[in-house]
Amino acid sequence: MKVTVLSGGVGGARFTRGLLALLAPSAEVTVVANTGDDLWLHGVRVCPDLDTLMYTLGGAVHEDQGWGRRDESRRVSDDLAAYGLGWEWFTLGDLDLATHLARTELLRSGLPLSQVTARLCERWAPGVTLLPMSDQEVETHVRLADGRLIHFEEWWVRHRAALPAVGFEQVGLASATAGPGVVEALRDADVVVLPPSNPVVSVGTILAVPGIRDALATTAAPVVGVSPVVGGAPVRGMADACLTAIGVATDAAAVARHYGRRAEGGVLDGWLVDDADAAAADVLRAQGWTVRAAPTLMTDVPTTAAIAAAALGLVDRLP
Amino acid sequence: MKVTVLSGGVGGARFTRGLLALLAPSAEVTVVANTGDDLWLHGVRVCPDLDTLMYTLGGAVHEDQGWGRRDESRRVSDDLAAYGLGWEWFTLGDLDLATHLARTELLRSGLPLSQVTARLCERWAPGVTLLPMSDQEVETHVRLADGRLIHFEEWWVRHRAALPAVGFEQVGLASATAGPGVVEALRDADVVVLPPSNPVVSVGTILAVPGIRDALATTAAPVVGVSPVVGGAPVRGMADACLTAIGVATDAAAVARHYGRRAEGGVLDGWLVDDADAAAADVLRAQGWTVRAAPTLMTDVPTTAAIAAAALGLVDRLP
Repeated sequence: MKVTVLSGGVGGARFTRGLLALLAPSAEVTVVANTGDDLWLHGVRVCPDLDTLMYTLGGAVHEDQGWGRRDESRRVSDDLAAYGLGWEWFTLGDLDLATHLARTELLRSGLPLSQVTARLCERWAPGVTLLPMSDQEVETHVRLADGRLIHFEEWWVRHRAALPAVGFEQVGLASATAGPGVVEALRDADVVVLPPSNPVVSVGTILAVPGIRDALATTAAPVVGVSPVVGGAPVRGMADACLTAIGVATDAAAVARHYGRRAEGGVLDGWLVDDADAAAADVLRAQGWTVRAAPTLMTDVPTTAAIAAAALGLVDRLP
Repeated sequence: MKVTVLSGGVGGARFTRGLLALLAPSAEVTVVANTGDDLWLHGVRVCPDLDTLMYTLGGAVHEDQGWGRRDESRRVSDDLAAYGLGWEWFTLGDLDLATHLARTELLRSGLPLSQVTARLCERWAPGVTLLPMSDQEVETHVRLADGRLIHFEEWWVRHRAALPAVGFEQVGLASATAGPGVVEALRDADVVVLPPSNPVVSVGTILAVPGIRDALATTAAPVVGVSPVVGGAPVRGMADACLTAIGVATDAAAVARHYGRRAEGGVLDGWLVDDADAAAADVLRAQGWTVRAAPTLMTDVPTTAAIAAAALGLVDRLP
């Protein structure tokens, strides 16, 4: 069985960990990761979502935090702050920095990000084929309500998405192409899953890479998604601020409609919502959606495996 | 009083610290640093001699070691080794890495190394004007007796200069130009000092930057040097291997002759040797040199200040 997941960071990584626990080891899982939050910082290349996926699936993640390495420290960044170059609010852990340095060395040697990622995964053995959405650099900026344009990480990490935003501008996205293997992974999958990642700046960015939405539209595989919104609030992070910025309600049904049904030019065939959103499920169902309500809080790996099972189970309910 | 020093790493940094202790605060000391040992490692720019100078003169050096930061740790590099990219033998301390990251960020923002160095020195307040010999990248490689060409740091750090070498090849040196302020610092100095740095790969490299030897030849300032060889052995490091590679004996008189007298097309007016080399001093003196023997072991700052005084005292003995 071949499963392809379009993932952002924490939510997608945790979901995929549950998916792997569910599936027999013979299943082939490919994760296409958002790289739109990536940045050059202090000369090194930081890829937050790729790292969260590697660490989570490789058993090295800081479990409570959801991202970064277990037993992390900040000896370098504390000293770096004395140079006063700014961005001190962006955590650059020592162990994480080792990954950034390794990645940067490999990139500077001329390898594309996809090959670099494969090389880094040799260490982490994530149990999936981890593919960057693109080998080209894409950098997300946030258009604030006051007109300013700031880097996504500055908005997200420094300002905790609290500055009102009116949209996202992604440098390099229009001219990017899907990374090696990405279109094939969508075309050849038995099922494609949109995990409970941020539908705007994570999955939305992946879908906006030229070629990926088309591959999703034309694949023979069913495409099922898990709502990242439960009871009118994001399960994690500040996806509500992203949804608000693009005029989508923070609501499980609204997110489904934002993705859209494949039958109507969208990307989804089925949609899993939380039990708390049973009413939204009813509304969507009445509108022709294949939708199911189940517990969706990823509290631990077995629970997450059950969520993955519920998501994959949507396939059997498709018309 | 304006003093300009052409320096490598540990020896030159310690000498300059003594020089600063000797001179009134009103003296203007400029240090032109060798950057021929610099390298890109894991995507960041490492400048060993500039860092040793900053840390030593800024009071942050690891005193016993002579280079690197006090209270250093290796959390990043220990983790980085797990990626198996090589160069694990090159120490990349956590605190030192903060400097490399800051430098790399500034370089990547488009600043030349000279401006980057000035910016980093705002933190360390070394009490001197610290100038890279050049803003262009120069990379020293070592031609081994077996024909192989390896990076200087690999020869020096990994192999402790134990592989027989037959010469040094410096990529970028022929097309490099002296950094901003370097020629002026030599032209306008009241005295120029060659500290007990490696005469081949440190001072020799600086002298080989097009324009610097000419500036030294034509400056009105006297040029005095301190022998890095005492009793037939280098005071520190493995300068003997470098001298041997270029066919110069590890001998205080041979090093003086290698530099040469300005009156005869060389770069020195006076030469300070250790008391242990009084015989060599006599030979040089008989050949017309202005030379002096004194204690030259830089055991602590007051002792080093006395050595600096002895070196500067050569000026009064010049014909």
